[in-house]
Amino acid sequence: MKALVLDGIDQPLQLREVPAPQPQPGEVRLRLQAAALNHRDVWIQKGQYAGLRFPIILGSDGVGLIEAVGEGVEPSCLGQQVLINPGFGWGDNPRAQGRAFNILGLPLDGTFAELVCVPRAHVHACPSHLTASQAAALPLGGVTAYRALFTRGQLQAGERVLITGIGGGVALLALQLALAAGAEVWVTSGQADKIERACQLGARGGISYHQPKWGLELARQAGGGFDLIIDSAAGPGVAQLVEAAAPGSRIVFYGGTVGTMQVPPARVFWKQLSLLGSTMGTTDDFTAMLALVDRARVLPVVDSVVPLAEGEAAMRRLESGQQFGKLVLSID
Amino acid sequence: MKALVLDGIDQPLQLREVPAPQPQPGEVRLRLQAAALNHRDVWIQKGQYAGLRFPIILGSDGVGLIEAVGEGVEPSCLGQQVLINPGFGWGDNPRAQGRAFNILGLPLDGTFAELVCVPRAHVHACPSHLTASQAAALPLGGVTAYRALFTRGQLQAGERVLITGIGGGVALLALQLALAAGAEVWVTSGQADKIERACQLGARGGISYHQPKWGLELARQAGGGFDLIIDSAAGPGVAQLVEAAAPGSRIVFYGGTVGTMQVPPARVFWKQLSLLGSTMGTTDDFTAMLALVDRARVLPVVDSVVPLAEGEAAMRRLESGQQFGKLVLSID
Repeated sequence: MKALVLDGIDQPLQLREVPAPQPQPGEVRLRLQAAALNHRDVWIQKGQYAGLRFPIILGSDGVGLIEAVGEGVEPSCLGQQVLINPGFGWGDNPRAQGRAFNILGLPLDGTFAELVCVPRAHVHACPSHLTASQAAALPLGGVTAYRALFTRGQLQAGERVLITGIGGGVALLALQLALAAGAEVWVTSGQADKIERACQLGARGGISYHQPKWGLELARQAGGGFDLIIDSAAGPGVAQLVEAAAPGSRIVFYGGTVGTMQVPPARVFWKQLSLLGSTMGTTDDFTAMLALVDRARVLPVVDSVVPLAEGEAAMRRLESGQQFGKLVLSID
Repeated sequence: MKALVLDGIDQPLQLREVPAPQPQPGEVRLRLQAAALNHRDVWIQKGQYAGLRFPIILGSDGVGLIEAVGEGVEPSCLGQQVLINPGFGWGDNPRAQGRAFNILGLPLDGTFAELVCVPRAHVHACPSHLTASQAAALPLGGVTAYRALFTRGQLQAGERVLITGIGGGVALLALQLALAAGAEVWVTSGQADKIERACQLGARGGISYHQPKWGLELARQAGGGFDLIIDSAAGPGVAQLVEAAAPGSRIVFYGGTVGTMQVPPARVFWKQLSLLGSTMGTTDDFTAMLALVDRARVLPVVDSVVPLAEGEAAMRRLESGQQFGKLVLSID
């Protein structure tokens, strides 16, 4: 089969012929139609991830048709179009993943390929209103957004939500899932056109995080502090989140691209804030996410679709931060 | 009546004769038997608190006998020994106090006096197993510890708890309330004798926070990470708390004496940690705290009892951090 292979740190992804994987007992083999990129793929390529091994086929998100089954899997599933739940081995504790937890695309070969083998229990029927590219945009970003909003953030209909750094895959899915749940959503970005596009998707408004004291200003525009904030930047900007937060509210962090969180403790305890870390999600989070997408007919935002052979260029676009929505590879 | 009066920032508390307060409708007047100090009193004296006014009688914690009642209060309560719930005007939102919230002892005159007037609804019968000094040690520290442990921290019996900076009033009450609830408790301190005394009270063990990498080391000694951590230091030491925390666990902050929290975001989201601010408590928190103290026969630790006239010296001892337990003023 053809696959995009990463041979080492800072090497480009190269399309080449590799042996086709064979489904093990309990597994299915998918002929992939579409795969989507995640920041995780870029970090692995740059060597900034635990458990590196090379050569590796990256890719956590994938949609395809079941074309072979391993021992013990019912052959009636052959031909079904499915998407992959890419989180393996969460473990028994719903509060946190165990040591065995891993994500498709390292250490196991992932979806930037014509074929991939995964456990039968990790493939789900695609929501029927989605194209293969849209469905491929969903898994890892969707489950991350779902857990941050609902399992950790306990979002309720009618609450005022702030999602920072709109434009990234998780942030946009968080926007769409929060709207689907009946929340009033506001955003931040460094680029005015991204705020504009978020408003076209249903956000009430937004502000540039380059503006001084943007936290209080956005809370003023929104008519009050936010009940729930979803952030992946962390860093010194957390002080603005703390200002933007309503008393007794929740701030969920699913990333920390700017580095060390710097938080004024008196504001945190006096306002009775909850700062909640969240990453990926359980199988329950994943199935609940799919059900919400299905019920509310959520259409994941796709920045662009390029052929598998152009995967390296897509990685560079993701790294640049210019995208709005998911970068998808079409595979045929 | 005699009272300790603070005339301005950095002035000593001075015992002098002032007019006796008269109970307003709905209020009772207590003849105080004992009052206890809180760090809040020191911060007000140093000018580090919002809403300063002078002259002021400090003191949030007090126990006494009801000796007069205002209009609308049943005279049958006269002569009862009661302690004061010092948090006024929390408001309708159990998640956070509203703008009207205030604590006895600023802006309203407090308990470092022979007499104090408070609303009838804010006095509660003293647990019968406590002396006046022990009961006076309870209110503000007890409600703060209770909310941090239970309402915010959701402590369950059998969980492994870490309480930092043992020796302070809230930290010791948190130790005692956590033990009363069936938790396994560990502590930190800068002083070995305080750890030793905490172990005499029921802690399983402890470590000096001056030791490098104490977080991982204490988790190793405890046989695993902590399910709940109660801290009032914040600052860069939060990184050690994050190491000591079990995956999916909670860290509750009720203070921030060391300053800006510096938190590695990747550890927070990967471990799915919850960093929870907490301060004071609701009336429900207060009554639940009293019920637990009563049921488990908790004996608050009193560092020392001195006469009201020596209040200024007690303030200096509290500021020094040398105390182990509450500093109590006896009033007669």
